Amino acid sequence: MHNLAGVTGLSIGRATEDLSKPVLIVTTDHASAAIQDVDEDESYTLDVKPTQATLHAPNVLGTLHGLQTFLQLVQVTPTGFSAPAVHIEDRPRFPWRGLMIDSGRHFTPVDVLKRNMDGMEAVKLNVLHWHLSENQGFRVESKSLPRLTELGSDGLFYTQAEVREIIEYARDRGIRVIPEFDMPGHATAWFVGYPQIASGAGPYKIEREWGVFDPAMDPTNDATYKFLEKLLAEMTALFPDSYFHIGGDEVNGKEWDANPKIQAFMRARGLKNNQDLQHYFNERVEKILEKHHKIMVGWDEIVAPGLPKDSVVQSWRGQNSLAEAIKLGYRGLLSYGYYLDMMSPASKHYLVDPMSQDAALLSDDEKKRILGGEACMWSEYITPEDIDSRIWPRTAVVAERLWSPQSTLDVESMYARLGAESRRLESLGLTHRTSEDRMLRRLAGTEDIAALHVLADVVEPVKEYDRENLHGPGSIATPLDRIIDAVPPESEASRRFAVLVDQFIAGRLQDAVLEKKIRADLTLWSQNHDQLQPLFKSSFIVAEAEPVSQNLSALGNAGLQALEYIDKREPAPADWIAQQLQLVKKADVKQADLLLMIGPSVQKLVEASGDPSIK
Amino acid sequence: MHNLAGVTGLSIGRATEDLSKPVLIVTTDHASAAIQDVDEDESYTLDVKPTQATLHAPNVLGTLHGLQTFLQLVQVTPTGFSAPAVHIEDRPRFPWRGLMIDSGRHFTPVDVLKRNMDGMEAVKLNVLHWHLSENQGFRVESKSLPRLTELGSDGLFYTQAEVREIIEYARDRGIRVIPEFDMPGHATAWFVGYPQIASGAGPYKIEREWGVFDPAMDPTNDATYKFLEKLLAEMTALFPDSYFHIGGDEVNGKEWDANPKIQAFMRARGLKNNQDLQHYFNERVEKILEKHHKIMVGWDEIVAPGLPKDSVVQSWRGQNSLAEAIKLGYRGLLSYGYYLDMMSPASKHYLVDPMSQDAALLSDDEKKRILGGEACMWSEYITPEDIDSRIWPRTAVVAERLWSPQSTLDVESMYARLGAESRRLESLGLTHRTSEDRMLRRLAGTEDIAALHVLADVVEPVKEYDRENLHGPGSIATPLDRIIDAVPPESEASRRFAVLVDQFIAGRLQDAVLEKKIRADLTLWSQNHDQLQPLFKSSFIVAEAEPVSQNLSALGNAGLQALEYIDKREPAPADWIAQQLQLVKKADVKQADLLLMIGPSVQKLVEASGDPSIK
Repeated sequence: MHNLAGVTGLSIGRATEDLSKPVLIVTTDHASAAIQDVDEDESYTLDVKPTQATLHAPNVLGTLHGLQTFLQLVQVTPTGFSAPAVHIEDRPRFPWRGLMIDSGRHFTPVDVLKRNMDGMEAVKLNVLHWHLSENQGFRVESKSLPRLTELGSDGLFYTQAEVREIIEYARDRGIRVIPEFDMPGHATAWFVGYPQIASGAGPYKIEREWGVFDPAMDPTNDATYKFLEKLLAEMTALFPDSYFHIGGDEVNGKEWDANPKIQAFMRARGLKNNQDLQHYFNERVEKILEKHHKIMVGWDEIVAPGLPKDSVVQSWRGQNSLAEAIKLGYRGLLSYGYYLDMMSPASKHYLVDPMSQDAALLSDDEKKRILGGEACMWSEYITPEDIDSRIWPRTAVVAERLWSPQSTLDVESMYARLGAESRRLESLGLTHRTSEDRMLRRLAGTEDIAALHVLADVVEPVKEYDRENLHGPGSIATPLDRIIDAVPPESEASRRFAVLVDQFIAGRLQDAVLEKKIRADLTLWSQNHDQLQPLFKSSFIVAEAEPVSQNLSALGNAGLQALEYIDKREPAPADWIAQQLQLVKKADVKQADLLLMIGPSVQKLVEASGDPSIK
Repeated sequence: MHNLAGVTGLSIGRATEDLSKPVLIVTTDHASAAIQDVDEDESYTLDVKPTQATLHAPNVLGTLHGLQTFLQLVQVTPTGFSAPAVHIEDRPRFPWRGLMIDSGRHFTPVDVLKRNMDGMEAVKLNVLHWHLSENQGFRVESKSLPRLTELGSDGLFYTQAEVREIIEYARDRGIRVIPEFDMPGHATAWFVGYPQIASGAGPYKIEREWGVFDPAMDPTNDATYKFLEKLLAEMTALFPDSYFHIGGDEVNGKEWDANPKIQAFMRARGLKNNQDLQHYFNERVEKILEKHHKIMVGWDEIVAPGLPKDSVVQSWRGQNSLAEAIKLGYRGLLSYGYYLDMMSPASKHYLVDPMSQDAALLSDDEKKRILGGEACMWSEYITPEDIDSRIWPRTAVVAERLWSPQSTLDVESMYARLGAESRRLESLGLTHRTSEDRMLRRLAGTEDIAALHVLADVVEPVKEYDRENLHGPGSIATPLDRIIDAVPPESEASRRFAVLVDQFIAGRLQDAVLEKKIRADLTLWSQNHDQLQPLFKSSFIVAEAEPVSQNLSALGNAGLQALEYIDKREPAPADWIAQQLQLVKKADVKQADLLLMIGPSVQKLVEASGDPSIK
């Protein structure tokens, strides 16, 4: 009801008692499990007819999903809000469809988590994987080990009441909450209050920079396991789900190498290398979890002979690593290819399938052990202000990948539907669209951001780890108030322009309607650098993008001149073309950590204008 | 720190330890009162110099205010963020500077209250007057009288834990929380669970419509006071502030007139009319509050001989009514002229002063009893989605009125500063700017809202009670998803256009730069109706504004033709002028509950074009 109100702006429900109007009848056979399980039926059947819609599901999970499908069908029309007549029988391909949020590096306020769970429900994701500890912070109140947050959180942590609130909120939306406490590495913040469980001499302080660091728990010390017994007894009780994530990634082993006591222990036990030592640690942690009836989840690195086969391996390494774990008898999840902080276009995430590459070669029984996947929102360069625009709408395409048949691969159709889905997500209160204007107004220091928007619309943040490649490792103090932080990961204007240019060229440069649209875009860009001059002078943040703006106008001009040649049906001279291609190349740089996305399309126009056959 | 991060987007505080950089040194003499008091010192002194800023205040309240002033000074510049060198000694004119939020008619979620308190802190308001009960809902959990929310809230109420959370959040921001439980009228929702305290026979149900209704508590029944003893014992303990608001407005007395038992009681006691009866009720309620050490606050209607002189009268009737109460010895607050739901321009609220009209004639001692005022956000047509845009930025001008000297009256300066203030409020997470785009995208059903925005930018919602005058009383089921709900109360584009036209005419129609700007606006408007055609066809919500859009383009054309006459230095013919003035008149209607705001300026241009002296 709340969500239908969100999609339509209508007040719905309590006051409506007129049964002569079209109704939606919902029937559910039984409740879902007291603690939501990975194996539960999530199917539903939805039938929309002119006077009545019916939704049936075996349990509440299917009902929730069916209601979301119904919401997707509701649209504004010339005569009112309506839903088309359809019959849908639906169930997910994978039972584990997750979003990981890293609340360790940048803390995620409760309201941000809640609105993102509203988004998860909308796209039928069913797991919030909550990354709760990092070198930079331990984020959950522990009553038995209070120094974890007192000294290891900068005051930014969730009380146990808040954790219970999040879990309840998730359950109401058909979402399981899997906590991750990363160990034995990624744990510097733990050691500030409890240096006795670390492998180094200490003292430790909260890590402020981003990266992989040396500190690691001491797997040879009984104090470590006593500590973990206490912590995990508390945390396994706090988080009701049957699965519990111990991280286990990226231990560089340096503290272990440097500690003679640890080296002696390894020799005594016949542990050949640090990997063996970490497996020894994992086995002992697994025993603790088992005592509390939890199933262990960890990243690729946890796989080893002694690990029980019901463990779940989450692969950041890819489908081949995933397939290896599956062949060893484990269950697995794919996250490689779903890292939202890489700033990839939706199309790239969309085409990554857990069942591809080596995973495609698995037997049917083995394939059943691939439970699904998770989109991952690592938060080095993410704040509450822009996290929504990094998660949405791109996570909707990962959700579709994990729900729909593997054969659903039409990228054009995906983009066509993604706009409507993005508006629906916006109606739920997500800020992925609106935060950009707010940030642009602030960094420009004025209301008048029209020209800045023209530039912002055709740039994207640099990809993968280029922000660090260009500047070195960042830290919690790195300002995240620049154009790169305001713009979405994918430039919709550039994508649309590329489609127009491709169509224009495919039509042998003759479609006047297309040409008019292309000319309008190019004209806007060619004039924009002049329009932006006042802001370059008044704001140091806008000023850093001045060269990008200059390139945009130069490319706009190049495109306009190419249209002149095309209109005159006179192939452009080779030296002019060579000049323009130099401009395109010059614009293909990473200034202000931005990529100007219209270069390839302008290049196509320029090259097309030189085609001798256009005469 | 959090707020400085909001204004700059920088991560500030914990990680910065470099004392060679400019610093802000804050000194505070002592803590503020354990329960924030209306008489507390709120002064501060702020001194910004090139290498160091110092803020001094006698207590934390002044410190909070001084920090907000410092934030106002921070601006983006060509070289970085900076604050100008200043010396400020500051204290408020009035000690009670409030915002009333009506959570009774439309419920206000906790996060909406929190972000609006962030806004209150930013503009130095110090009272949240929280209207918590209405005919349409009782909104606070009562442990002793659980049916109040079980049967009287539609499930929309605050738990006591949430109330405590709000009070704590307020206190951290120097804000007192004054609860209002409106009685003996405006209380239908109470009677659903407890009909025994009502004056009618019952049964009652939650009121769904807006308006003034008959049900009222029975002031002659001891059960009523036993009930109130119980409720107020609980609520006065829950809300720590010394003041407690009992409403007391708009009792129509019909249930009293119709009840023979009540009539007999009145005769027996010599109560001459319903007003006397209400005063009898108020006196008994006041005794209960006194027992719990609370001072009563109520609307104008509570004033009567038996009421203790420390009571506070909040005037919705105006400065004259306020002055009357003051002369009788009471203390008072002004809310007349600060009703945000009237959709008035900021300039109108700005010029309303508690010390004007009859209040200006009071003695100095009497004037001291005017404690301040409150902006009021009544919520008949307000949802969590648009409440921010109704409160902000206009409430900032009420806040300035209540803080700054009475002589601060420069409307032009106010508007010049309000834009920056609006951006600052936006940085705190308020959605008064961003919600419009979100709503327009939804009601249009598309991303492509450029033309719709051109129209939305020059219209305003109808004023005062015109929405009900046009449609009759609304209800909780009235859709609030239309253009009127999306657009801000005041059209900034129309205001700016009016300034341009006035300057152009004052300059004898000769300034080419002004004319170019005016022409650009008029051209955009004249072409916009064509641009909007696709949306009229696809969305029934946009379609209702088709006549407004037609008028906009007609006025755009009229203005352009006027400019033609002006350019030719040939006075426009009288019959053409008469025709255009007819168009202006035709456009001055309330279609789709919208006002087209550019009419008067276009009229001025048309009239100027006929001036014989322009030759």
